[in-house]
Amino acid sequence: MTITAVGLDGDDTLWHSEGHFHVTEQRFRELMAPWTDPDDLSAALVETERRNLRLFGYGVKGFTLSMIETALTLTGHRIDGRHIETIIGFGKELLAHPVELLDGVADTVAALADHYRLVLVTKGDLFHQESKVAASRLGELFERVEVVAEKDVPTYGRVLGRMGIAPPQFCMIGNSVRSDVIPVLDLGGYGIHIPYHVTWALERAEMPGDRPGWTQVGSIAEAPAALARLGGA
Amino acid sequence: MTITAVGLDGDDTLWHSEGHFHVTEQRFRELMAPWTDPDDLSAALVETERRNLRLFGYGVKGFTLSMIETALTLTGHRIDGRHIETIIGFGKELLAHPVELLDGVADTVAALADHYRLVLVTKGDLFHQESKVAASRLGELFERVEVVAEKDVPTYGRVLGRMGIAPPQFCMIGNSVRSDVIPVLDLGGYGIHIPYHVTWALERAEMPGDRPGWTQVGSIAEAPAALARLGGA
Repeated sequence: MTITAVGLDGDDTLWHSEGHFHVTEQRFRELMAPWTDPDDLSAALVETERRNLRLFGYGVKGFTLSMIETALTLTGHRIDGRHIETIIGFGKELLAHPVELLDGVADTVAALADHYRLVLVTKGDLFHQESKVAASRLGELFERVEVVAEKDVPTYGRVLGRMGIAPPQFCMIGNSVRSDVIPVLDLGGYGIHIPYHVTWALERAEMPGDRPGWTQVGSIAEAPAALARLGGA
Repeated sequence: MTITAVGLDGDDTLWHSEGHFHVTEQRFRELMAPWTDPDDLSAALVETERRNLRLFGYGVKGFTLSMIETALTLTGHRIDGRHIETIIGFGKELLAHPVELLDGVADTVAALADHYRLVLVTKGDLFHQESKVAASRLGELFERVEVVAEKDVPTYGRVLGRMGIAPPQFCMIGNSVRSDVIPVLDLGGYGIHIPYHVTWALERAEMPGDRPGWTQVGSIAEAPAALARLGGA
């Protein structure tokens, strides 16, 4: 079977995201420096996020609540109300941040759309993700935009089912080995990994190693050639 | 054309939601009573929610952040950190609250599924809504579950387009005139309004009056007969 459909991740594949979270975390570390060691703060924050994931899911609003909770815990609730307000402001700035496409995205996605059915598969706050798709001006190149709660085998199975695509006809492109590559390989499809310069602690995963059907490229501009090597158009 | 497909809203149509928000707001009023008049607090909260809607969208996490912001503003940032933690706890309890179906929902949705294609169209946090659909045990009765960022004419147009349904074949059932009835009438479909005992301030709307194509019933058990009257099976 030939690859006829391509899935693309949004955050850190089409547009910058984790970089903005990283900058926000730096500002949070500076804000909290009078009370707590920055590295202890980061470690506590990721633990809070991990604990809250089951209730909050992914996205900026949950991240903001986890920052506030971490600040309260590490200061024994003594943090000033103005600082809590500053943290809420960090969250709002993240939500309002303009969408910045990664290098080569606009041209490459347009080129891919000439040869493949395209679907955007992205995780996080529905409202924020749809805002980003609209701001990216890429929406019309995609046959479908699927904002999903979790990127696992059942989710990809549902997305392909709705499009009438068999897994061996599908390749997913994204920056997360855990969310974009492994579940699609498990389903019988293909994956292209494009590392982003920073990966959220809860997205880190082992590489699929010598499993067949996936490859890694340095930037999205290399994706069309990689697709052709994997069995695409 | 005959009505062949029925859309159902989730929150306050299939399961209780605004009632839980209302109880939470009562607890928030009690928590803040040492600092601020409860009615002033409620008025300020709805204003904060309205202002934040553009960034936060709908759902519990945004509501929780808006409660914290309102508490900070109305106390001149003097509120104690333990109270902020309590507010975060309110939000977590809302997210973890068991799904309670409204009376008659299980039987009526099963009966509707025998005669109509069913789609659940619900607004809010994707992650929380999908959790509620799963907990409701109703998911399998629906051909599709659409969690949407906003319930407006373009959104309903997309949902119907994906299902290959023309608006005159579609009737939406829900508790919000603004979100469930008016946009579907505007699109050329039908609507059944089932009032819930409490309506969020930002969902209140004028009734469609004597516009054709909609009706109001007292409970979901009356929906099948109302559908038949509107032109269904």
